[in-house]
Amino acid sequence: MHMVRVTIILIISVAGLFNNARAQDCKALEGDWKNELGSILVINQISTTGQLIGEYKSSSGVDGKVFPLLGWINNYNTDTGGVVSIAFSVKWKGYSSITSCTGTCSNDEEGPKIKTLWHLVRPDQEFEWERIIANSSTFRPLSR
Amino acid sequence: MHMVRVTIILIISVAGLFNNARAQDCKALEGDWKNELGSILVINQISTTGQLIGEYKSSSGVDGKVFPLLGWINNYNTDTGGVVSIAFSVKWKGYSSITSCTGTCSNDEEGPKIKTLWHLVRPDQEFEWERIIANSSTFRPLSR
Amino acid sequence: MHMVRVTIILIISVAGLFNNARAQDCKALEGDWKNELGSILVINQISTTGQLIGEYKSSSGVDGKVFPLLGWINNYNTDTGGVVSIAFSVKWKGYSSITSCTGTCSNDEEGPKIKTLWHLVRPDQEFEWERIIANSSTFRPLSR
Amino acid sequence: MHMVRVTIILIISVAGLFNNARAQDCKALEGDWKNELGSILVINQISTTGQLIGEYKSSSGVDGKVFPLLGWINNYNTDTGGVVSIAFSVKWKGYSSITSCTGTCSNDEEGPKIKTLWHLVRPDQEFEWERIIANSSTFRPLSR
Repeated sequence: MHMVRVTIILIISVAGLFNNARAQDCKALEGDWKNELGSILVINQISTTGQLIGEYKSSSGVDGKVFPLLGWINNYNTDTGGVVSIAFSVKWKGYSSITSCTGTCSNDEEGPKIKTLWHLVRPDQEFEWERIIANSSTFRPLSR
Repeated sequence: MHMVRVTIILIISVAGLFNNARAQDCKALEGDWKNELGSILVINQISTTGQLIGEYKSSSGVDGKVFPLLGWINNYNTDTGGVVSIAFSVKWKGYSSITSCTGTCSNDEEGPKIKTLWHLVRPDQEFEWERIIANSSTFRPLSR
Repeated sequence: MHMVRVTIILIISVAGLFNNARAQDCKALEGDWKNELGSILVINQISTTGQLIGEYKSSSGVDGKVFPLLGWINNYNTDTGGVVSIAFSVKWKGYSSITSCTGTCSNDEEGPKIKTLWHLVRPDQEFEWERIIANSSTFRPLSR
Repeated sequence: MHMVRVTIILIISVAGLFNNARAQDCKALEGDWKNELGSILVINQISTTGQLIGEYKSSSGVDGKVFPLLGWINNYNTDTGGVVSIAFSVKWKGYSSITSCTGTCSNDEEGPKIKTLWHLVRPDQEFEWERIIANSSTFRPLSR
């Protein structure tokens, strides 16, 4: 009886370790995140100064190619209840556009989320006033 | 032989002088740009892949400090009449915020301008819905 | 005489039941819609010219009061696959703010949704550049 | 000599009366305002509850037609140094779009200005994520 209980505790611990090794969260953002349209934000590296480097795989309008991105995280303030500022820009190589996403990483009942507003600039539009489109995008950890 | 070498050195020097005197424009963005509030965008370097590195000196709310910025230019499309996409993000070191500016460099009757919309994320606000502020900002070459 | 009065009352009741049972959708927007924060958008009336009149009950920051709103729908174009433009502004009476929501009504697998971006202007902020906040909000029919 | 002085005073008074009758400002917004692109915002009427009714004459993309607009002003807060919240939406009749402008009326060294950010929704775009464009627009009194 005593032996069985110990075994169960060990299994839970091992599962916890594997889980920790895989799950991205707002303290360790590196990994793959997916938004509501199925696009994938890959955060490859965050430097000690907060520089963020990664790739973006859009699900819409660009034939599934991969595009480079860079940006920042800012977790200076510890009064924010664990909320981290994040911003990144995607260069749409082979097109003339750039998208900048700006927002936060925080936790809700479903887990960590990167919630952003974005601006996409498209210089090939007829009128100057129609060159920037705006919208929102929320990313969740991609389960592997 | 000796005479020829001297001549070449002189030509390079003169070119260097002219290069320093050259004003920033949408084809050579490196230099200082000033917006309507008096903030200075310093573009230090643009890599061959379009990565932009620089500094931001805000005129408002941050005591005149200097903050690092990074981003992209995208001049792929030649059908845009010389309009170049530009985006950069400023990390407000010592605060918890990031600002992302997104827009274009183009020319009007006053010369080159970097016209952007921006989002500023501030995680230390009470409500989640009030964490992102938005506005516009236009930069002109700083006359030296 | 007595019989007639009873009949009239019954007809009114039945009409009331049918009216309550009808679900709001993008062709008949009148009714209550709820967003992800629990705020209620009440669309009371849409005129023949597309003017929209209603009320807003915010779940956050204003103590559950009700605020007037007005705006437009635009369903002119029939090439949009049933997507309707919608915009409305809420006057935060007793405060100094106004919020404008702008977006579309369309259908997805969960049913109709009013998907908007919004700007909220707050003139009582210290700096001019921090007076407009931005975010997104999606409303679904409130089940009754 | 005395007669001449009186005459001059009378002329100044009459000029003052005409000037008062014409100039829009943040306390009396009714009148014509022009933005940087040459579009005209006509504010016809502001009700006691702050409802704003007017017309918009765009300089770009719609062949110089006139479009109806409605919105709000909010001047509740007297702690804002005379800054008034303003928002209005333009229904692009004959198209499928709506534009919402949101911002403030305030004074600077050039006089009163209505400074706004706007969202324009266009449901006839191919992808849902490209249906909202964003930009800024500042209106000044149209001199007549």
